[in-house]
Amino acid sequence: MSRNIYIDNMPQEKALQLFLDELQSCGWFERTAEYVPVRETLHRITAEPIIARRSSPHYVASAMDGVAVKCAMTIGATEGNPVNIMAGDYLEVDTGDFVPKEYDAVIMIEDINFFPDHIQIIKAAVPWQHIRSIGEDMVEGDMILPSLRTIGPYELAALITAGVETVPVIKKPLAAIIPTGTELVDSAQIQMAPGDIVESNSYMLMGLAREWGADCVRHDIVIDDRELIRQAVLDVKEQADLIVVCSGSSAGREDYTAGIVRELGKMIVHGVAVRPGKPAILGIIDQKPVIGVPGYPISAGLIFNLFAKPIIYRKTGVPVPDADTMTGTISKKLPSPMGVDEYVNVNAASINGKMIAYPLNRGAGLSSILVKSDGTVHIERGQEGLVAGSGCSISLYHTGRDIQNSLITLGSHDMSIDFLIDILYRDHGIRLVSTNVGSMGGIMALRRKETHFAGIHLLDEDGGYNVSYLQKYLPDENYLLVNLVKRHQGLVVSPGNPLNIKGIEDLVRNEVRYINRQKGAGTRILLDHLLKKEGISPTVINGYNREEYTHLAVAAAVKNDACDTGMAIFASAKAMGLDFIPVDVERYDLCILTDIIPDQQLECLLQVIRSEEFRERVNGFGGYETDLTGQIMHQPSN
Amino acid sequence: MSRNIYIDNMPQEKALQLFLDELQSCGWFERTAEYVPVRETLHRITAEPIIARRSSPHYVASAMDGVAVKCAMTIGATEGNPVNIMAGDYLEVDTGDFVPKEYDAVIMIEDINFFPDHIQIIKAAVPWQHIRSIGEDMVEGDMILPSLRTIGPYELAALITAGVETVPVIKKPLAAIIPTGTELVDSAQIQMAPGDIVESNSYMLMGLAREWGADCVRHDIVIDDRELIRQAVLDVKEQADLIVVCSGSSAGREDYTAGIVRELGKMIVHGVAVRPGKPAILGIIDQKPVIGVPGYPISAGLIFNLFAKPIIYRKTGVPVPDADTMTGTISKKLPSPMGVDEYVNVNAASINGKMIAYPLNRGAGLSSILVKSDGTVHIERGQEGLVAGSGCSISLYHTGRDIQNSLITLGSHDMSIDFLIDILYRDHGIRLVSTNVGSMGGIMALRRKETHFAGIHLLDEDGGYNVSYLQKYLPDENYLLVNLVKRHQGLVVSPGNPLNIKGIEDLVRNEVRYINRQKGAGTRILLDHLLKKEGISPTVINGYNREEYTHLAVAAAVKNDACDTGMAIFASAKAMGLDFIPVDVERYDLCILTDIIPDQQLECLLQVIRSEEFRERVNGFGGYETDLTGQIMHQPSN
Repeated sequence: MSRNIYIDNMPQEKALQLFLDELQSCGWFERTAEYVPVRETLHRITAEPIIARRSSPHYVASAMDGVAVKCAMTIGATEGNPVNIMAGDYLEVDTGDFVPKEYDAVIMIEDINFFPDHIQIIKAAVPWQHIRSIGEDMVEGDMILPSLRTIGPYELAALITAGVETVPVIKKPLAAIIPTGTELVDSAQIQMAPGDIVESNSYMLMGLAREWGADCVRHDIVIDDRELIRQAVLDVKEQADLIVVCSGSSAGREDYTAGIVRELGKMIVHGVAVRPGKPAILGIIDQKPVIGVPGYPISAGLIFNLFAKPIIYRKTGVPVPDADTMTGTISKKLPSPMGVDEYVNVNAASINGKMIAYPLNRGAGLSSILVKSDGTVHIERGQEGLVAGSGCSISLYHTGRDIQNSLITLGSHDMSIDFLIDILYRDHGIRLVSTNVGSMGGIMALRRKETHFAGIHLLDEDGGYNVSYLQKYLPDENYLLVNLVKRHQGLVVSPGNPLNIKGIEDLVRNEVRYINRQKGAGTRILLDHLLKKEGISPTVINGYNREEYTHLAVAAAVKNDACDTGMAIFASAKAMGLDFIPVDVERYDLCILTDIIPDQQLECLLQVIRSEEFRERVNGFGGYETDLTGQIMHQPSN
Repeated sequence: MSRNIYIDNMPQEKALQLFLDELQSCGWFERTAEYVPVRETLHRITAEPIIARRSSPHYVASAMDGVAVKCAMTIGATEGNPVNIMAGDYLEVDTGDFVPKEYDAVIMIEDINFFPDHIQIIKAAVPWQHIRSIGEDMVEGDMILPSLRTIGPYELAALITAGVETVPVIKKPLAAIIPTGTELVDSAQIQMAPGDIVESNSYMLMGLAREWGADCVRHDIVIDDRELIRQAVLDVKEQADLIVVCSGSSAGREDYTAGIVRELGKMIVHGVAVRPGKPAILGIIDQKPVIGVPGYPISAGLIFNLFAKPIIYRKTGVPVPDADTMTGTISKKLPSPMGVDEYVNVNAASINGKMIAYPLNRGAGLSSILVKSDGTVHIERGQEGLVAGSGCSISLYHTGRDIQNSLITLGSHDMSIDFLIDILYRDHGIRLVSTNVGSMGGIMALRRKETHFAGIHLLDEDGGYNVSYLQKYLPDENYLLVNLVKRHQGLVVSPGNPLNIKGIEDLVRNEVRYINRQKGAGTRILLDHLLKKEGISPTVINGYNREEYTHLAVAAAVKNDACDTGMAIFASAKAMGLDFIPVDVERYDLCILTDIIPDQQLECLLQVIRSEEFRERVNGFGGYETDLTGQIMHQPSN
């Protein structure tokens, strides 16, 4: 068996330049015009200068509601000595009405006294006053729009006024997206075979390409068969201006794209020194660009942004819009290999006027990260990464205002935080960014003032919650400890509890595959506390070192038979249709730093926590108690 | 005859507040959801939180191309002491493949040596390495998106991955636009009756409303008949969320909208203290907003921006985007009445790093101004206007980058400037902003360093052009005087020359209605020179004081019998199909300030002027000579 595992590692700017040069030299950037009825041209781009086909106004027009007169008749008129003009010698006109040749001025209605058979003028008219010349707005032959102008609402109105019927606009380049992979299925089923993957990358890429000004067509999914993939490329080749092959771009067993590009055309670059997304392919077939994007969604999105975006914009004649960027500091160390340009998704929030970027999980397979992310931090080639607290530039996905108006919570995960996120934004326009770093992680973030508040559920020695930790780690801070919920913790097991697990004492059984939470998670501390009480050594538990980061992930692992049990809250077991062996009821509080959260936002936060809707949504989920919800549990007297 | 000419003069923010309060109290902002197939939701807005219907991955998956093994089998493996694993005890996997329960690690392909019946491992595996947990990306029950989130390409992919089939999204509010006016026609004819106006406002308003997130429907044009307009409002009332009546909002004879709003519902505001756009109507009919916009396009656009934009955004749950603003100085005095908020369209360009706003013609009827404009300067109520050189904030229509990369030319108008505009942007991405202030206006702008260059055609005493003026007014400046074109000046007359005009001596005839150019225009100076030479007094010319600002406007006035003749260049007569009596050939030069135009842009400008394409387009137009085009006519030795 032979695997070609060696691909290039070309710097991104060199790869792009080679691609652009090749496309330039084969004439791909030459623009094609199509003729579109004027009323359908909103947001299209002019392919050539557009000339007025008529003058507007095309007649001498009144610029006011009033009366058209001959100036000569009004000479000498004053308030003390008004001039009368008899019916027949003047013409009532509204704004826009034709002013016939025999008149040379319009007097505003406010300056006229009307009588049955005459009007009275109190001020002499100046020649051509309140009269619009022919062509005042536009003249036949005038250039209304130059080439490559985007037709917005105002341009559209001007074109209609100018008598333009059809407009030569840039034909949108057509991107054909070919999803490949035997593992791909077209839509999700609730029960899917292991190994099946829902094909969603093509829709992401089509959405991006449309935002950049392309039209798109999606080929049906093609299984990993060299001949079928080759045929798919041939099928779209005539119609498409840009061919995108999704996945199959690396050097794995079933990665045929590179070979097909070499066979049908010319390979420009295979392998770019970026992360994620290294195994990208840039090629040319029949004077048309072919881009092979990796299968992981974040890699696919990055490669498409780096290489499809500039060529689509250039082909349509529109400059690539500047990214909305902000400078900030990075919240934690970000190691990165020297040799690659790395793009890391981050959340961003402003704390005390200081913008902080919070790196997200760098797993390229996580489509959820692209949704959570506020933007990316670029670690340039030649840098070994960023140390915590160093400056960085954040390219934003959203506008600056959204970011400035954000609250951030780093700490333990609870589903009820999602209700806060939802209601805070919906009712108050406040975006709440939540990152799960466990309870201890939350306390450390509070210490560094890198979070407005943290969700924590840390068992104190005295059987209470959280206070002793806060006294130890935040001795000098002002904060409010507010209860969000009380919640049931227990062991999640398959329906019917097939291994007959009754409590944590059963975790020592060798056939019981456990899944744990990450270090610092309150649930793990609770387990450790219970194990200690029972005198059980963690080392004997099969899977104690296998970590998940959320309650739901633990339940999902049980549901899918990746393990037999894990400790989690009731709500997660319920959501997955699993059984639940109760172990404890714990307090889940928010520790809010009152010195750094803006007053207005604190007020909104407390209002949402104490709202009827929040309580109802929490209780509706199950496994929660809300008798303490919204109560202040502790407030230091610093 | 009775005319109700008195309407309110309410401050805009008070008018908006009353409108918002009334809509709030009648529940209009309550949002409606509709269920849309997930793949059709790009750029829609979630109406409620969206929950994952499945976990992803839903199985334990390989994160790499490699082989799945049992960790225990790899203990002790090093480069010096590799471990062999026999076929059957491992499983080849590609990225994303299912890893069955019997394996607990994946080893990357790069770290394996393959043999026919076994593989060789050189490094011990750590439990769960390169294995993706179930739900690593998302877990069934997770909130994927909160309420009121715009679904972009990334969100779309995540929703598909999460198994969401249909998405509850905010139903777009439907704006019904009713154009009214007996003078309106649906589309332009080359020959239209005097008084007819092409209806284009509705398309402008629909374009704007769509950009703000609404759907739109356009009613047929309704003539000025109270009962028919009332019926049109009733017709759209059930279906529409927002009713917009175009024009008919002032207090002229045929303005029925206000009365209809009062009859069918409630008038909130009639008349707002803004300019342009004062006679706006804000009302409520059947708990739905009705906006009456004035008939002039700039007034209509402004009123729609002030009052429709905020309510459409609030109804869809999206914050109104911040305007892109820049600070600059205003190039000339802008008087404005104390009592109104005035919005003035301006061009904007950066000269020597200083942003300058150039006010455009304030005629509200000029749809071409909205196309030329880069944005608006707001003169607040209580200010008497802006003096030249004072600071101002410019709300931009385009992005900052376009503005920064602009060249500006203030001076005399020539059609060939349009070719420069077109080619400079198309080939070099340089936006050239041209404002016609006549040759002398151009020289004054050069003196104040408010323009990069100016087009001038001023006859010197010695029969040459421009140099004596520049020596007088720009004695200390560095500039290049470059010829753009030579052009034929003459008298434009109707086809067949019915008044038998042979030269300027015929302008003294009383029946000859002349139309002049504005003061400072080179054409006017040429006329004055010729009149002086002939010993003709300007006062005897019928229409000497009637001014147009461009050659084409002069020709259009002749074509439409608003006058009998005017002096203009040959090209304008030809474009209008008119006859032309040659009077002179003049030089039209560009005076370029070399100290303030960036080198790169100067180079592009000269390159375009000297290009074959420019020459061909000028000559194709007619009436030009290009033997001097691109030649440097004068360069002072300062």
